[in-house]
Amino acid sequence: MNFREKLYNIVHKNNSLLCVGLDIDKEKMPKFLFEKDKDPFFDFNKSIIDSTKDLVCAYKLNMAFYEVLGEKGVDLLQKTIDYIPQEVIVILDGKRNDIGDTARKYAQSLFETFHADAVTVNPYLGKDSVTPFLEYKDKCTFILCRTSNPSAVDFQDLKIKDKPFYQQVAEKVKEWNIYGNCGAVVGATYPDELKTIRGIVGEDIPLLIPGIGIQGGDIEKTVKNGTNNKSEMTIINSSRGIIYAGYDKDFAEKSRESALFLRDEINKYR
Amino acid sequence: MNFREKLYNIVHKNNSLLCVGLDIDKEKMPKFLFEKDKDPFFDFNKSIIDSTKDLVCAYKLNMAFYEVLGEKGVDLLQKTIDYIPQEVIVILDGKRNDIGDTARKYAQSLFETFHADAVTVNPYLGKDSVTPFLEYKDKCTFILCRTSNPSAVDFQDLKIKDKPFYQQVAEKVKEWNIYGNCGAVVGATYPDELKTIRGIVGEDIPLLIPGIGIQGGDIEKTVKNGTNNKSEMTIINSSRGIIYAGYDKDFAEKSRESALFLRDEINKYR
Repeated sequence: MNFREKLYNIVHKNNSLLCVGLDIDKEKMPKFLFEKDKDPFFDFNKSIIDSTKDLVCAYKLNMAFYEVLGEKGVDLLQKTIDYIPQEVIVILDGKRNDIGDTARKYAQSLFETFHADAVTVNPYLGKDSVTPFLEYKDKCTFILCRTSNPSAVDFQDLKIKDKPFYQQVAEKVKEWNIYGNCGAVVGATYPDELKTIRGIVGEDIPLLIPGIGIQGGDIEKTVKNGTNNKSEMTIINSSRGIIYAGYDKDFAEKSRESALFLRDEINKYR
Repeated sequence: MNFREKLYNIVHKNNSLLCVGLDIDKEKMPKFLFEKDKDPFFDFNKSIIDSTKDLVCAYKLNMAFYEVLGEKGVDLLQKTIDYIPQEVIVILDGKRNDIGDTARKYAQSLFETFHADAVTVNPYLGKDSVTPFLEYKDKCTFILCRTSNPSAVDFQDLKIKDKPFYQQVAEKVKEWNIYGNCGAVVGATYPDELKTIRGIVGEDIPLLIPGIGIQGGDIEKTVKNGTNNKSEMTIINSSRGIIYAGYDKDFAEKSRESALFLRDEINKYR
């Protein structure tokens, strides 16, 4: 089964475009977990997964939050990925990139060592740096087009022949989609750019959309501008707003309430 | 002691602008190491460090080659960094980048968990994604300007108001150098661009230059176009050409010969 089929199946099974970002951070996690718990980070992820797995199409793990834990972080990343139900998409958000030979090692690491279904990749180094990821034909490579942060404008808005740079990247994403395994990352904080990018890449390319919730992205605009003509091919991520919805023993139930609310809000506009 | 002082000291002590890239790769390493050795990767790195540490100003560890080994890779990265003499620069080449909050975790990971002296960072997300790295004032953040791969031209050469994109990035590197801790990555495979970038960033910003040797960069042009008016502030990296110079029991001696030759070739043109 390739990535798009897997995505289609889980979107329909759980009636959801929602992705939950498992961005573990000791400072934001419930304190009681660190009092007696032997493996607080993994137990936290397990609880969040248990309480949301029927409400999501995907989980996204941002590698920065795992890398900072050193060796323990790699173990945690592996255990968490293994714990996610087989039918749910696993996105490893590392924004990796390097020259060809080295990019091949990253692709191997993310898809083979860690068994990701999809990854995020930075486009700055051009085609030969993205190709090693695209060689994994049944996986999906989400290329950063328009990021959700305020400084996205610094370079991504620079005009090249009257067309901003992020649009040039979107055109390349379409061009590189030979095996049907390219995706694009577009921040919900830029709804107009989201609409433009959906227009450029067409109906079949999935968009991964962070920036909903704490970052301020509007749900209605995100759904209307981001989905394709079947109100699909869009994965809308929320991290902090869901996993840190509660701080006490009922944190998992709180995260379920948040996820349920957000899934339904998204579905309202589909 | 800040990064520039540390770099100045070791460049003078070892009379060297050479950086050796410890890009461990089982397929390229001497076979005998994997026959009986319990820790072949670390023993390989130790041997290379022992045989070249008086000939280099820096070691660069590309994180892709460690990440692909999973948990073992993190341990190996830590042990290797600990083994490098205190006076020699350690560059962690991860080309990391993310939005502000997450970039902070990467910076913490690289500078605090792994104790790097310097890192490489991708500029695509703009200033707020680079700032968390620059807050480590005594370290150095090398921003990718012009990469050494053929596809570098895909985006980095696109013209914005008659000026290629990589020059816009170089101008930002200069602008962001408030604490004197910015550097730029420029591939030796593009000597004209190297000269232009040195012109833009001025005399004080260090350039990290990969692409010598197997990738085809010319030593004379690299030194003449890359160094500042004191023939310094340039770190010239070679990985495969040095660490895989030999395939047999004398691999460490072969790597020393290669490093010595390259160091002296570089010095010829300073």
